[in-house]
Amino acid sequence: MGIVVQKYGGSSVADATGIKRVAQRIVNTRKQGHDVVVVVSAMGDTTDELRDLAEQVTPLPPPRELDMLLTAGERMSMALVAMAIAQLGHKAQSFTGSQAGVITDSVHGKAKIIDISPGRIEQAIADGAIAIVAGFQGVSQDTKDVTTLGRGASDTTAVALAAALGADVCEIYTDVAGVFTADPRIVPAARKLDRVSTEEMLEMAASGAKILHLRCVEYARRYDVPIHVRTSFDTVEGTWILPDHRSGENPMEQAIIAGVAHDRSEAKITVVGVPDKVGEAARIFETLASSEVNIDMVVQNVSAAATGLTDISFTLPREDGQSAMGALARIQDEVGYDKLLYDDQIGKVSLIGAGMRSHPGITAKFFSALASAGVNIGMISTSEIRISVIVDEGQIDTAVQATHTAFDLDATEVEAVVYGGTGR
Amino acid sequence: MGIVVQKYGGSSVADATGIKRVAQRIVNTRKQGHDVVVVVSAMGDTTDELRDLAEQVTPLPPPRELDMLLTAGERMSMALVAMAIAQLGHKAQSFTGSQAGVITDSVHGKAKIIDISPGRIEQAIADGAIAIVAGFQGVSQDTKDVTTLGRGASDTTAVALAAALGADVCEIYTDVAGVFTADPRIVPAARKLDRVSTEEMLEMAASGAKILHLRCVEYARRYDVPIHVRTSFDTVEGTWILPDHRSGENPMEQAIIAGVAHDRSEAKITVVGVPDKVGEAARIFETLASSEVNIDMVVQNVSAAATGLTDISFTLPREDGQSAMGALARIQDEVGYDKLLYDDQIGKVSLIGAGMRSHPGITAKFFSALASAGVNIGMISTSEIRISVIVDEGQIDTAVQATHTAFDLDATEVEAVVYGGTGR
Repeated sequence: MGIVVQKYGGSSVADATGIKRVAQRIVNTRKQGHDVVVVVSAMGDTTDELRDLAEQVTPLPPPRELDMLLTAGERMSMALVAMAIAQLGHKAQSFTGSQAGVITDSVHGKAKIIDISPGRIEQAIADGAIAIVAGFQGVSQDTKDVTTLGRGASDTTAVALAAALGADVCEIYTDVAGVFTADPRIVPAARKLDRVSTEEMLEMAASGAKILHLRCVEYARRYDVPIHVRTSFDTVEGTWILPDHRSGENPMEQAIIAGVAHDRSEAKITVVGVPDKVGEAARIFETLASSEVNIDMVVQNVSAAATGLTDISFTLPREDGQSAMGALARIQDEVGYDKLLYDDQIGKVSLIGAGMRSHPGITAKFFSALASAGVNIGMISTSEIRISVIVDEGQIDTAVQATHTAFDLDATEVEAVVYGGTGR
Repeated sequence: MGIVVQKYGGSSVADATGIKRVAQRIVNTRKQGHDVVVVVSAMGDTTDELRDLAEQVTPLPPPRELDMLLTAGERMSMALVAMAIAQLGHKAQSFTGSQAGVITDSVHGKAKIIDISPGRIEQAIADGAIAIVAGFQGVSQDTKDVTTLGRGASDTTAVALAAALGADVCEIYTDVAGVFTADPRIVPAARKLDRVSTEEMLEMAASGAKILHLRCVEYARRYDVPIHVRTSFDTVEGTWILPDHRSGENPMEQAIIAGVAHDRSEAKITVVGVPDKVGEAARIFETLASSEVNIDMVVQNVSAAATGLTDISFTLPREDGQSAMGALARIQDEVGYDKLLYDDQIGKVSLIGAGMRSHPGITAKFFSALASAGVNIGMISTSEIRISVIVDEGQIDTAVQATHTAFDLDATEVEAVVYGGTGR
């Protein structure tokens, strides 16, 4: 039997009861003959509580020290999970990100994994132990300082470890039963997907589906790691996220549409009256890039011949809004644009499905569903397997519901159950 | 200017307010031109809370995992102290025991420091930063696992670091103003000592004075580190603990008696009817030693010629009582003793003073004071600078008060103030 990597989120290990339940589940997997490596998040709201504590001391904590503080969270949960497993008569050893060989760059707060050197984990497995690893954290290659990988990055730790260890599967345990065709809070008739391709999941994560972190799915695709998203509160199967070549299905039989995703975290900036000259747009986006602003969708209006001016609109995370506006204001004279407009009353609705490639007419059907529901489309962007539109924030729910129904995704009975608290 | 090591206990860093006050104090020391290295304990009752959490999961946590859990405590406080210093505009970096180079043996829960390799601390100092180090923790030389040094061992971390760095002084900040001639809760007229010799402090710590951990004072004596015990709640000078050769005083002018200590943590075991043969006592104490029981005082009665039997009494920590009784019961047939008596209703009262060496008559005066107060003396043990007696537990306070008065230690007004909470 091979290695199974299991990742338990904060809501699964929120208290002693949860920790004991998780330990039992881990031991059951071990008894089935698997070598088990477990990645844990901090208990419940611990990470937020530690952030609050830092805020009481200073509004601007040095990132190195904030990482040192936050990594105390997983240290507690991993030790407690190891204890609970020992109590059940099995051998367990906990490891910090550093001990587990999670080597990162030095960008505190959102470090990227450079390499995994899981020598101690492999030794623990060889010794017959279950290895418990702190999610979310690593050690910087250059400074040997403790780093964190950013919010929700325990999933990434799990997939990266699964890849490094050549695990059979990476099981991500959460408080919902799997990946759904839409957010069940908006579409009560959303259906649980049994399978979804890594590519589709990547588009869903990038389009606002919160079930898995984008980087985690990118890692899974790059290193060909099968992910099984499921709940720790029940034994039902969840959703398998598999590369196309592993899905074992005839592409012709594949569902055309995987689901509808939405995102409330974006804002739109319009640069009005940009001289329609070579290099102006490049200057604008270079400026944004050097301010570490991530751009999502971009639209450039057709230049009005009479004025020689054009408008450039783009969307970006709301949290980057202020620094983007500031950066653009500083180059107004240089670029010579007229003014800036900022709008954060927007949302993005995306339709995702690998079947789009072979089924024409999806876009028409999508837009027609939105029109029938009275939803105005702002910007549009597409990939091979995704169509996204920007709509008014107040119309997001209507747009998601209408689309879900139009593509026959509605289940006949309610499938979605949220098990634990709200934390990850 | 040289290096100053400062150690702040849990009551000094119990919350954000305490952390900011401590940060200000550290920065003030830095501004005086010193290089500052700070050792911190976990905030307030954090360590006990973590122990409770472990107990909720299992009654017998594996020691390696318990150490992993508990070390989260100092991780939080050290990061927060570093943040608070940064907020005051000074550079600070926090370091775990492992990062600070605190190398220990592998005895989880009470590891001993083998070596200190403070390369990263020295680098931080060279970079102009204040180094904040986690007390109480280290890393095992053999297994590279995280270890803890036992309750109250942050003091030991501080003194060991001061020795390794060649610091000018190790300041131990606590919630009382210094070392007193007796426990002010028993003797309200107890006086704060301005100076006490390392040897005297060693005897006081071994005799139950809780202000400093025994191992910390041993370390200070071995590596010739001056300690300054003081409070973080006030700017008054506390008590200097100095090796004799540093005290700068004429030994003739030295106070004869440093203080009166007491200890409520011991029990007495009597082995009744031991055959008075060569090797029997050795057999008993070998058995106790191999059960890791630490013996304090020992008395062997004069053998009754008629029976050829003798009684052996000894004191030991109450927490070792059960394992000692068990170990002795197992060798009853082999040794052929009659029976075992166990008494934990005892206490130890000790008179300590380097002046005893040159002043005869101290013992007589001590015993006479106890007799006048109606205190019965059980066992007696002495060193060059200490006399200890075992008394009934209910007579400890009376014995301490009578002794304090008899040796003219009473102050004319109350000097003792307890500043913070009760934690260390």
